[in-house]
Amino acid sequence: MFDAHNIDTSDLEHVADGKTFRWFGRYDYDLNVAHTLDTHLNVFADFQPKLSEQSKNSRLVFLGNIQPDLQRGVRQQVPNAELVALDTMNLWIDTARGSLLETIKGVDLVIINDAEARQLTAIPNLIKAARTILSWGPKALIVKRGEYGAALFTADTYFAIPAFPLESVFDPTGAGDTFAGGFMGYLSSQRDLDEAAMRRAMIFGSVMASFNVEEFGTARVVKLTHDEINERFRAFKQMTHFEEIPFQKQ
Amino acid sequence: MFDAHNIDTSDLEHVADGKTFRWFGRYDYDLNVAHTLDTHLNVFADFQPKLSEQSKNSRLVFLGNIQPDLQRGVRQQVPNAELVALDTMNLWIDTARGSLLETIKGVDLVIINDAEARQLTAIPNLIKAARTILSWGPKALIVKRGEYGAALFTADTYFAIPAFPLESVFDPTGAGDTFAGGFMGYLSSQRDLDEAAMRRAMIFGSVMASFNVEEFGTARVVKLTHDEINERFRAFKQMTHFEEIPFQKQ
Repeated sequence: MFDAHNIDTSDLEHVADGKTFRWFGRYDYDLNVAHTLDTHLNVFADFQPKLSEQSKNSRLVFLGNIQPDLQRGVRQQVPNAELVALDTMNLWIDTARGSLLETIKGVDLVIINDAEARQLTAIPNLIKAARTILSWGPKALIVKRGEYGAALFTADTYFAIPAFPLESVFDPTGAGDTFAGGFMGYLSSQRDLDEAAMRRAMIFGSVMASFNVEEFGTARVVKLTHDEINERFRAFKQMTHFEEIPFQKQ
Repeated sequence: MFDAHNIDTSDLEHVADGKTFRWFGRYDYDLNVAHTLDTHLNVFADFQPKLSEQSKNSRLVFLGNIQPDLQRGVRQQVPNAELVALDTMNLWIDTARGSLLETIKGVDLVIINDAEARQLTAIPNLIKAARTILSWGPKALIVKRGEYGAALFTADTYFAIPAFPLESVFDPTGAGDTFAGGFMGYLSSQRDLDEAAMRRAMIFGSVMASFNVEEFGTARVVKLTHDEINERFRAFKQMTHFEEIPFQKQ
């Protein structure tokens, strides 16, 4: 499947002994909040990615959700990357907070959900929590909010988008990862990684996530076409547009 | 206070015996969900508004949150209104659902929060719940989502906006009512009550709500200036803007 989509898998490692990473969770009535029941790291527990020379020259790097010491190990292998983004999860906030903060210091962009932003900072107000995370070093923070969309924070800007409205959500698992993949994938097509590009990338991330939840696993995303993606991008423009006519007292 | 803001109070009634309506609630850690502890209707229980001839000719009518039979009584007094909107609450969904559905049939716009939309329809998916409410008769539905903003549904359009980002929320009580007031107030300044006007009105509703939560009660709203309102309107444009450049395979 990866080969068919022209995805370089040369840095993948196969471990003969050990099991695949597993996350166990349940969703509430409204499918919005994922509750972790159990996390089995298995072979992920001490996976230390060794990058090829080609991978070390990557322009964009996404540090997927592994133990923060290991994320830092990857970060150090790509000193010249233009943009390094990071994901994490509640497990690492609970068990390796100090290391996680150290890792966050060294990245350009943090991509997490709202519960994680609150847990990480112990600040209930999301806007204040975001300011705190930015004060640690990253130039930008994306907070994913499930069915409510996503928000991008920088030192002096704020951008928020709704989620694509879906009448049936088959399986929200992986929506956040698909968002991150769509976001990074779009950015990699752009010369300038400025705020305007990041904003468009957020729309693409949301579009990809909206397709992902329509079927189980990768069933929907694997058969996506560029036309389908662009059509939903245009729908986002429609559903967020309003005219810039301030109120005038009459 | 009302007089100073040029608000017509001639239809107000004073009841010599009886107590004012009271709502008792608590908020969670994140201030997003209001949990009702108790509702004392008091003089509101059987308040039957009698409109003056002038009020009967109102172009826009907002049926505030009272018993749905009584709302219908007001609705029947304004047969020529261009737009009639309705608010309600969990109490009426629980105790007078049949009457509430009958009342909803006769209005143009329903303005409720997401928990109420789900409770009213017993449908967990908000988009499907919205379609169901529209199938009962109203031409439009606004769903308020607290810190996540608000969405406008019509038969064939969807519009969603974030909330104004605030680092400190003093008191979320009344944010929904202030949204509705700002929304209706803006619409009343417009000749055409079309979708474009409704979208702008939603921004104004959100702007007003964002000010309201900054202080207790009406303390912040009462001293608002038009410049402050317009400044926040423009901020909404900034924080939702992205360029319409679809993805092209390179």
